[in-house]
Amino acid sequence: MTVTAPKGFRAAGVTAGLKASGKPDMALVVNDGPDRHAAAVFTTNRVMAAPVRWSKQVVTDGRVDAVVLNSGGANACTGPQGFQNTHTTAEKAADVLGISAGDVVVCSTGLIGEQLPMDKIIPGVDALAGALADDGGHDAALAIMTTDTVPKEAVFTGTDAAGIEYTIGGIAKGAGMLAPGLATMLVVLTTDAAAAAEMLDAALRDATRVTFDRADSDGCMSTNDTVVLLSSGASGAVPDADAFAAGLTQVCAELARKLIGDAEGAAHDIAVRTFNAASERDAEVVSRAVARSNLFKTAIFGKDPNWGRVLSAVGTTDAAFEPDSLNVSINGVEICQNGGIGKDRSLVDLEPREVLVEIDLAAGDAEATIWTNDLTHDYVHENSAYSS
Amino acid sequence: MTVTAPKGFRAAGVTAGLKASGKPDMALVVNDGPDRHAAAVFTTNRVMAAPVRWSKQVVTDGRVDAVVLNSGGANACTGPQGFQNTHTTAEKAADVLGISAGDVVVCSTGLIGEQLPMDKIIPGVDALAGALADDGGHDAALAIMTTDTVPKEAVFTGTDAAGIEYTIGGIAKGAGMLAPGLATMLVVLTTDAAAAAEMLDAALRDATRVTFDRADSDGCMSTNDTVVLLSSGASGAVPDADAFAAGLTQVCAELARKLIGDAEGAAHDIAVRTFNAASERDAEVVSRAVARSNLFKTAIFGKDPNWGRVLSAVGTTDAAFEPDSLNVSINGVEICQNGGIGKDRSLVDLEPREVLVEIDLAAGDAEATIWTNDLTHDYVHENSAYSS
Repeated sequence: MTVTAPKGFRAAGVTAGLKASGKPDMALVVNDGPDRHAAAVFTTNRVMAAPVRWSKQVVTDGRVDAVVLNSGGANACTGPQGFQNTHTTAEKAADVLGISAGDVVVCSTGLIGEQLPMDKIIPGVDALAGALADDGGHDAALAIMTTDTVPKEAVFTGTDAAGIEYTIGGIAKGAGMLAPGLATMLVVLTTDAAAAAEMLDAALRDATRVTFDRADSDGCMSTNDTVVLLSSGASGAVPDADAFAAGLTQVCAELARKLIGDAEGAAHDIAVRTFNAASERDAEVVSRAVARSNLFKTAIFGKDPNWGRVLSAVGTTDAAFEPDSLNVSINGVEICQNGGIGKDRSLVDLEPREVLVEIDLAAGDAEATIWTNDLTHDYVHENSAYSS
Repeated sequence: MTVTAPKGFRAAGVTAGLKASGKPDMALVVNDGPDRHAAAVFTTNRVMAAPVRWSKQVVTDGRVDAVVLNSGGANACTGPQGFQNTHTTAEKAADVLGISAGDVVVCSTGLIGEQLPMDKIIPGVDALAGALADDGGHDAALAIMTTDTVPKEAVFTGTDAAGIEYTIGGIAKGAGMLAPGLATMLVVLTTDAAAAAEMLDAALRDATRVTFDRADSDGCMSTNDTVVLLSSGASGAVPDADAFAAGLTQVCAELARKLIGDAEGAAHDIAVRTFNAASERDAEVVSRAVARSNLFKTAIFGKDPNWGRVLSAVGTTDAAFEPDSLNVSINGVEICQNGGIGKDRSLVDLEPREVLVEIDLAAGDAEATIWTNDLTHDYVHENSAYSS
């Protein structure tokens, strides 16, 4: 159920000493082929970390042999020295693996604005190479955690038209700064299906658009987000592009759900579903506006089904709707009908962690769901006490 | 120092029984002329409260004789009955004052999605008429408070070219849901200057654009925001349009600052100033992105000068800048230089309530400042416990 579930991959996670806690903080995923096709998406933040600038270049030719990841330092806003450190890390990994540095993706997460301790990173790469294993995916998932409380892994198994089985596996980290255009998150996806880089790229963009891009924990976009997908072709399966994309979307959706489920300080995971919209874009815009309303998010924390705060957020958008036609349900109870008072709000049970808000725009037949979290004392505490 | 400081105005504030606390909850401001010119700006939220829909119509002819305000209920999302209640309130006020209902602005603030208790509102209007006084502005300021801890008032005195003195006075309420396109706020401004409705309108738009529109406490836009400006001409002064607009801006700036200073649960008032921008629009966009970053706001609450979170917010905008040319100061210490590590962050003192964040885009000579607050435990507490 991880990145080493597909054939042709090895992985490792080790403690290099970047974290004061002494927990694992470096990971490596290696594609042993026969194919080494790849695709990736990155943060759209213009202040992008050194490893993102490096890795964007690496994936342009559609080939990636290995991914080196570290927690305990984002290597963002670190200037030319930071970029040099990423380059050195890739060179070191290439050296020990006998590959080209230009085929090594580097991912970092942690504090912004501090240089990585290269005297720990370099031995860390050696240790990773020594620890590589066919079942090392879980160790890798553990080593990329920051404020995550649990590792995140997922897997999908499908068959191609000839009945040959293939697998897609993934690991993810991220527990805050989760926002559109990805999140503070690092995701490595692997598959043993045979798929050209173009097919991987199309499938990855399809999948992330409706999964990670719709996980919006706190509206803040990171400098380091990276989702990279590697294919080894080792299964011999040659899946149909649509079927592959659907499987990949399933893996990404599961990982995205796990990210929201482990968001910093959250007490509720909230699905904001907008339906009967004139377009999917409208539905997404409306759901995101509600998902980003601090007043709505604090109300859910207080177990208050405050539909007025939902409507006031909907009203800030340019989506097609008539205010007097809006209906809002929370956990199945339609407490706002025709833009006004609906069923008794006391009927809404907000005790469960999972909350479903449904907004009926009465303007078409499109829909979209954004996943978010409530805004809690613990969110404030974690993010005021923890420097990142 | 209030709406009755200018000549030609009377005001009152009374307890009508809308608030469970028994505190004053209805206010009235009357323009006794000789002029009854007016201008107003309203929330741009498409889900607008009944009193906003009513009052927008009232001001279209540039004449307003009186403003009736209530706290204890927003009369938003209340359907046709809510609009009828606003109409009835205006009719009642017109009746007791001997004016036309079409010249009565109505403002409401409080819970969304509940009908106003008209059996209290109607006697409240009678009580207001009986309490009208030349020095009633302070009572009015008290009666419009919701979660405000202090009333907000301001005054400006100027002279026209002939040396005749005129006054501009104002009252405001609002302590949360403060966001662009105004805030959850009601503001009444009065002046005894002689000014046509067109001049009032231009001055008001100039003033609100750089004051209330740049107070962004929590990014949430209300359904009820109203800023109304009345002129009586009773001073006989005929000020130059620019001088009048400058004076009005001063009053609005003072009131906006007081709104931020009393924001729900805030521990810091934060001025986010972006300078050396290619345009004022760029500067505003950048400052607002930082002002809306929950991670930045929680960091300030934690007295952590976390410039990485400033840069990651700046990076989400489309403003003109080069990431490697950004400089950021917090309270005068340039802790980020050229997009990277600058002066020692321990030099930043975040003990004072007032915080100044300065972002140098190195892209031009324009600037803008957005005022916001930190994100605190008390914000979460107040907004999860209080239904609004």
